[in-house]
Amino acid sequence: MIYARLTPLAQRLPANVPFVGPEAQERVLGRPFKARLGANENVFGPSPRAIAAMAETEMWKYGDSESVELRAALAELHGIAPENIIVGEGIDGLLGYLVRLLVGEGDAVVTSEGAYPTFNYHVTGFGGVLHRVPYRDDHEDPARLFAKAAEVDAKLVYLANPDNPMGTWHEGAALARALDDLPQGSLLLLDEAYIECAPEGTAPELSADDPRVIRMRTFSKAYGLAGARIGYAIAAPELITAFHKVRNHFGLNRAAQAGALAAVQDQSYLKEVQTKIAEARRRIAQIAEENGLSTLPSAANFVAVDCGRDGAFAKAVLDALVARGIFVRMPFAAPQNRCIRISCSTAEELDHFAAALPEALADARGA
Amino acid sequence: MIYARLTPLAQRLPANVPFVGPEAQERVLGRPFKARLGANENVFGPSPRAIAAMAETEMWKYGDSESVELRAALAELHGIAPENIIVGEGIDGLLGYLVRLLVGEGDAVVTSEGAYPTFNYHVTGFGGVLHRVPYRDDHEDPARLFAKAAEVDAKLVYLANPDNPMGTWHEGAALARALDDLPQGSLLLLDEAYIECAPEGTAPELSADDPRVIRMRTFSKAYGLAGARIGYAIAAPELITAFHKVRNHFGLNRAAQAGALAAVQDQSYLKEVQTKIAEARRRIAQIAEENGLSTLPSAANFVAVDCGRDGAFAKAVLDALVARGIFVRMPFAAPQNRCIRISCSTAEELDHFAAALPEALADARGA
Repeated sequence: MIYARLTPLAQRLPANVPFVGPEAQERVLGRPFKARLGANENVFGPSPRAIAAMAETEMWKYGDSESVELRAALAELHGIAPENIIVGEGIDGLLGYLVRLLVGEGDAVVTSEGAYPTFNYHVTGFGGVLHRVPYRDDHEDPARLFAKAAEVDAKLVYLANPDNPMGTWHEGAALARALDDLPQGSLLLLDEAYIECAPEGTAPELSADDPRVIRMRTFSKAYGLAGARIGYAIAAPELITAFHKVRNHFGLNRAAQAGALAAVQDQSYLKEVQTKIAEARRRIAQIAEENGLSTLPSAANFVAVDCGRDGAFAKAVLDALVARGIFVRMPFAAPQNRCIRISCSTAEELDHFAAALPEALADARGA
Repeated sequence: MIYARLTPLAQRLPANVPFVGPEAQERVLGRPFKARLGANENVFGPSPRAIAAMAETEMWKYGDSESVELRAALAELHGIAPENIIVGEGIDGLLGYLVRLLVGEGDAVVTSEGAYPTFNYHVTGFGGVLHRVPYRDDHEDPARLFAKAAEVDAKLVYLANPDNPMGTWHEGAALARALDDLPQGSLLLLDEAYIECAPEGTAPELSADDPRVIRMRTFSKAYGLAGARIGYAIAAPELITAFHKVRNHFGLNRAAQAGALAAVQDQSYLKEVQTKIAEARRRIAQIAEENGLSTLPSAANFVAVDCGRDGAFAKAVLDALVARGIFVRMPFAAPQNRCIRISCSTAEELDHFAAALPEALADARGA
């Protein structure tokens, strides 16, 4: 039987799903969600120029396997060289390639307990061994991450700044200093998916050629193109080149490339979206406050609402919200799982959340 | 230095590029091609319904990670169950997942000398060992492929029907009979990328649950959606399930899913395209004949033109065409590399080819 011939690693992998998508949840519910506040998507959407560029794309043609125009625009935006940039199928796709390049069976990888599950999925998928350190005051803890990396001789250390699912962040300067303690032989994977939502100074000022770090960015969040599946990484050319050994060279959707290029070239639209995201964060905090709940300061396009008790209670609140057609998610690990995570959205969707939250809390308290 | 910590496999992989794309070639040429006849794209393009569906897609949302609607439509089209279908980022993406599931370092894989390089790229990329058998009369040779698989205990055997780059094909009934000689423990990967361009009866009638075979289909060819990067595989549910262990669950572009769904639902448009492809094949054969060249019968959206001498001569013809702004490709291996491969296209693009070919032949003969 052929399935007995899967690789030993593939045989022992669980049928793992990092996330259940909102459509899958809607099929279970039997109706669409009223508010889609769970996947940190950006309801404000992409630049109209990006929409036009995608619509004009001739989809019978394969995309440019080298993403030359997009890489040139990104290089200009960041003041770096195109050789420092690899474009890929979202951060998720790039994470898979990076893990494949570095992590073999039994290799150590360090992350935070409760951090991005899709990263963990890739590490497990290539046979790596995950070592997790706890958050510190709801922040990822670079000092502890790097100390653990030294202890276990980690090939890769994952750190999201701003953090998901808490929305907390470190100042770039502090992160740059903390890097001094990254052990030689460990690569820092700095996931900056939410960086465009963060205050000035959150991104550390590092040379793109710094061999200690690879940074990942995406068009899925502030740029509003989650459905396009396109993101990029910034690193030293030597590491960027290694991606070409394993990546799916013609894997990028042609319209996604055109849309991302147009989005990069419309920074004034991005500013408008940043303002809307900041407004939505304030509104979420206000709704929480009206219900006697506190929120965590956030530098991302979502807010962690502290439900004030344990994980079971927060889960009950979440379930009650989902039952009322409000799609939200929550942190996986204690004590962060005392929170639920609310994505920024329109006033109308947040009105639905505001209407449902008191009932959900009452349900959870009564449960 | 971190790059010394790439996995041993990643360190030894070449910086391999299965294909140089037409955009990359245009950058070298310094001007756009007049005719894009090299990548087996479909210039007739996707169904207008697919174009409309893509344009209407809300790109701020992630795609459905389970592709439920598309799988349902494909299941109906083929009279099989959705559990027999996995949708992925084109056949290229699905090839990568399948190889990853089955092929570890040193595992044997069988293909034809000169067959699809992207498959070879994935096999090498996961450390597999390729065994190649020659074509027989410009056809892939199932008997020899399966005999080699038995000899080397291959986990995977690659066979494209219709074949790329020659365009030749086997009748489905003959392939189904040949399968009796596939060794136990070998999985046949039947690449049917061009099947919608082939005569009735080219696809073997096999149960979708047949554990010996996985079939791959794409929206890049007859459906005209190469830029969307979407394809699917048909296999027994046990094998389909294994893909969920390694695939990028949210890797599909949302518009690509919507476009593919609309394309499947517009089979009458597909029929129009099939007619245009057949016309273009005849036109290519006619152009070749006017130049004293013969062509191979083709069941694909391209035609192999026999340049009548050796590989060096065909390469000279190809170079002379490219220099005249006609993008074409050619087979990699002898004796198939006596041919150049011309993708079906519009009358206008084929006029450019017709104008350039006599000069290109004269150049090559003079060289």
